[in-house]
Amino acid sequence: MSYKKLINDPFDAVDEGLEGFVAAHADLVALAEPRVVVRRIPGIGKVGLVVGGGSGHEPAFAGYVGAGIADAAACGNIFASPPPNVVLAAIHAASHGQGVLVGYGNYAGDVMNFGLAAQLAGAEGIEVREIQVTDDVASAPKPEASKRRGIAGDIIVFKCAGAAAEQGLSLAEVERIAIKANAATRSMGVALSACEVPGSGRPTFELPDGEMEIGMGVHGEPGIKRGPLRPADEVARTLVDAIVADIDDGGRGDVALMVNGLGATAYLDQYILYRGARRALEASGLRVARSYVGEFITSLEMAGASVTVTLLDDELLSLLDAPASTPRFKA
Amino acid sequence: MSYKKLINDPFDAVDEGLEGFVAAHADLVALAEPRVVVRRIPGIGKVGLVVGGGSGHEPAFAGYVGAGIADAAACGNIFASPPPNVVLAAIHAASHGQGVLVGYGNYAGDVMNFGLAAQLAGAEGIEVREIQVTDDVASAPKPEASKRRGIAGDIIVFKCAGAAAEQGLSLAEVERIAIKANAATRSMGVALSACEVPGSGRPTFELPDGEMEIGMGVHGEPGIKRGPLRPADEVARTLVDAIVADIDDGGRGDVALMVNGLGATAYLDQYILYRGARRALEASGLRVARSYVGEFITSLEMAGASVTVTLLDDELLSLLDAPASTPRFKA
Repeated sequence: MSYKKLINDPFDAVDEGLEGFVAAHADLVALAEPRVVVRRIPGIGKVGLVVGGGSGHEPAFAGYVGAGIADAAACGNIFASPPPNVVLAAIHAASHGQGVLVGYGNYAGDVMNFGLAAQLAGAEGIEVREIQVTDDVASAPKPEASKRRGIAGDIIVFKCAGAAAEQGLSLAEVERIAIKANAATRSMGVALSACEVPGSGRPTFELPDGEMEIGMGVHGEPGIKRGPLRPADEVARTLVDAIVADIDDGGRGDVALMVNGLGATAYLDQYILYRGARRALEASGLRVARSYVGEFITSLEMAGASVTVTLLDDELLSLLDAPASTPRFKA
Repeated sequence: MSYKKLINDPFDAVDEGLEGFVAAHADLVALAEPRVVVRRIPGIGKVGLVVGGGSGHEPAFAGYVGAGIADAAACGNIFASPPPNVVLAAIHAASHGQGVLVGYGNYAGDVMNFGLAAQLAGAEGIEVREIQVTDDVASAPKPEASKRRGIAGDIIVFKCAGAAAEQGLSLAEVERIAIKANAATRSMGVALSACEVPGSGRPTFELPDGEMEIGMGVHGEPGIKRGPLRPADEVARTLVDAIVADIDDGGRGDVALMVNGLGATAYLDQYILYRGARRALEASGLRVARSYVGEFITSLEMAGASVTVTLLDDELLSLLDAPASTPRFKA
């Protein structure tokens, strides 16, 4: 099948999308330079938060720039890390003398480019810390949890860290919050279809009619099981069971539950999956205290969804609930 | 091709989706009875606003129930009007002694069922007025504008009317605002793919590889032109030109611009289309004062998008900007 797109020249898609994005949300954000989205009104005198990664995951990452979350987003090509100079420009924009935390999903290209930019900024005298989000339990076993990829848990980690920064906490404290939120957050997804990088002329992978892949990554990275498409409740249980099994003393306490649509999956389906995931969590003895349903980090027009569970304590709950005014997350 | 869905029994999809929806947004909404979504905290002593229509258009219509917009939503089966008893129950829930406005897109089934429910409520002593949204310029020529269908303009009309009701205006005034917002609002869409009603086992229509249909309705109603898929800027110009040509003294003043994704079209594409539509409007001498980009009223997993343009005056602008706290529209 062909993926029909509403774009112009594929090579202009990222920049034209960003031009549209900052024009549509000009009350909240601006382009500091190509591929660097910043707050319209800078957050003075606070720790800066830079987020970013490849494009094609909209509304991630620029959609979370604004009061209460990120100060700047560094945007790469489709499914490709932003180069170090773009990340460095984002760090400059986010730096207000209190240091900068850079947050991104744990992918080799991002680790390299954000890390290099952090070193360059450090050499300029800007104190920079990094948080690599590792929420995707399907991407590595528990003993190697630090190798896991970052998917929708990015948004939870960025929201908590951004709220901490907004409240005036120090860089060390904001980093502590980010590490804690990441450790408390687990996700797993299911892909029902591929997507197509503009200009590539072919899908990112093949998934036959009637099949799904559990644990597939948002760029088509292999999952843990491919098989016939199952009912939503069964898919929800599979995802939740894998997440709960990964929690050391799972089965107690309050959680935040996020169901994230990957692009082409209808809201109706997202809410049905949410219902199933919530029931599965409750059957495990966990209580859903906060819920997020929608498209938070996508893979262009991929069909599928992910489930994210964050173990809450009073500190994380209060940071999740703190005010946020960004194009795609308002609280 | 097959449309892969994350659902359980197709016949339970609407109710399971609503169960998930009200559980996810329990701070804002509740199910008063099956298919009737109401505010968690009723809006006492004000004109009530009931919205509704078929399901499969999520986040419409229940996503707009909450302070600042609707008091209740009546939800039908997929792409089918809610029956009169469901609409009547929604009217009862929204009635607080000041009368009720019922708002819906102009489709024969909705006109019949909402109209009958309004009559029944009237016989009970509840004063009810109706607004039928008719923003889709592709669905009938200008001399027959009252026959046009309602699409994404629904959301603009409901937002303005809901804000007026929230501010304590009388039923006659709320109705006046709704009529004015509808008259000021024009939309046109483009479909790139069909979708599939759960359980039907087949797409709602056929659209060959590489083709698009301009003006196609959100249930697959025929459009005005089918042909090869064109670049986003050209699609945007086609849609905007048709909208501007329909405005009596088009070419002056401020407008709100909404780009609405139909379900499977990526945010990246939506923002590229927004960019093109904004440029086309500015070339026509109109100034974009407010922007809304995202999925506001969908057709399950249909690919495509619509453009909505509302001519603004101070009154409508202030109503659009008024506070709203609903699951899918916050201001």
